[in-house]
Amino acid sequence: MGALTASEKGTTPVRGLPKQARSRVTRRHLLEAAVSCLAEHGWAGSTVAVVAERAGVSRGAAQHHFPTREALFTAAVEYVAEERSTALRELFQAAPAPRPAVVAALVDLYTGALFRAALQLWVAASNEEQLRPQVTELEARVGRETHRIAVELLGADESVPGVRETVQGLLDMARGLGLANVLTDDTARRDRVVAQWSGILDAALG
Amino acid sequence: MGALTASEKGTTPVRGLPKQARSRVTRRHLLEAAVSCLAEHGWAGSTVAVVAERAGVSRGAAQHHFPTREALFTAAVEYVAEERSTALRELFQAAPAPRPAVVAALVDLYTGALFRAALQLWVAASNEEQLRPQVTELEARVGRETHRIAVELLGADESVPGVRETVQGLLDMARGLGLANVLTDDTARRDRVVAQWSGILDAALG
Repeated sequence: MGALTASEKGTTPVRGLPKQARSRVTRRHLLEAAVSCLAEHGWAGSTVAVVAERAGVSRGAAQHHFPTREALFTAAVEYVAEERSTALRELFQAAPAPRPAVVAALVDLYTGALFRAALQLWVAASNEEQLRPQVTELEARVGRETHRIAVELLGADESVPGVRETVQGLLDMARGLGLANVLTDDTARRDRVVAQWSGILDAALG
Repeated sequence: MGALTASEKGTTPVRGLPKQARSRVTRRHLLEAAVSCLAEHGWAGSTVAVVAERAGVSRGAAQHHFPTREALFTAAVEYVAEERSTALRELFQAAPAPRPAVVAALVDLYTGALFRAALQLWVAASNEEQLRPQVTELEARVGRETHRIAVELLGADESVPGVRETVQGLLDMARGLGLANVLTDDTARRDRVVAQWSGILDAALG
């Protein structure tokens, strides 16, 4: 996944919808604008005002939904992470998928706008006390959910000693591959690494 | 490795040394102060002035050594990375080491002040055009050197198809483990993952 697609950017027109639905759409526009903003400009360049403008929402309306900058950006990363999780589950719902396809899809979670945004938030939280507890908690939650999906889609049996750590290591590798893709397009190298480790993991998981 | 140790902080007294040696020591003090500063305060909080004060060096002297902020911080990350590489090679020079010990030492490269500093620089470079070319080039160089050391210490035969990618994936995993350690102390989980992946890697490398 690269930048957010048009539908992910939340271009649903707001006018003509009933009030509650309008509020939900506005909220979604704000969350998606916040993720793009964070991915492109980093934490220092990401304020509620910038996001409101990007989402085409008044600053007052933005503050009504998210009273603080920290609340907006942690909610944004969580929202997009949930969307991705749902999409990933749906992708493999129809039929059991071969493990290499699952590994590739898991790695893809770490190479787009969501990962860039989460990384910016993560690194900012390491230097900013007021951001740290929320981001630490968010990362733990998203991490647990990703692990659950990985175990399920890989058909891994966690009652076997070591399997849990094998899957965790795969997700750590995926995170490292995501980091290697932040400054340059690392796709060609990543594809080779993923192909090789898919085989190794398939053997390790039995 | 956690924070830099006393000797790494460069507490060598400068007075009483000949001029050239004094200049080298000052340079080293600046580089080590720059890495600690970056790791603790991030790119936004890291300026030449802050580092000069931390190193006990005048701002003019700091600017004599490093005319720009970008030059100081990229040189700092490179210097400490080289120190770590040398230390790693020396650690295993006496006798061939068992692979799990090598894997643990490689992962350790990504869990201390150097990784935190490099991560800050990396993420800042993704949003700042004037920093990006230097950091991209630095990361490529440090990455190649780390790969070379890993291949050598693991006794991996890169003429065998797939071995190169196996080693690369291990270093990607180490990088991901480093990222997982930025906000919380992930040592206990990391040790379990490293133990499991050491076994998998050992089998894969033959």
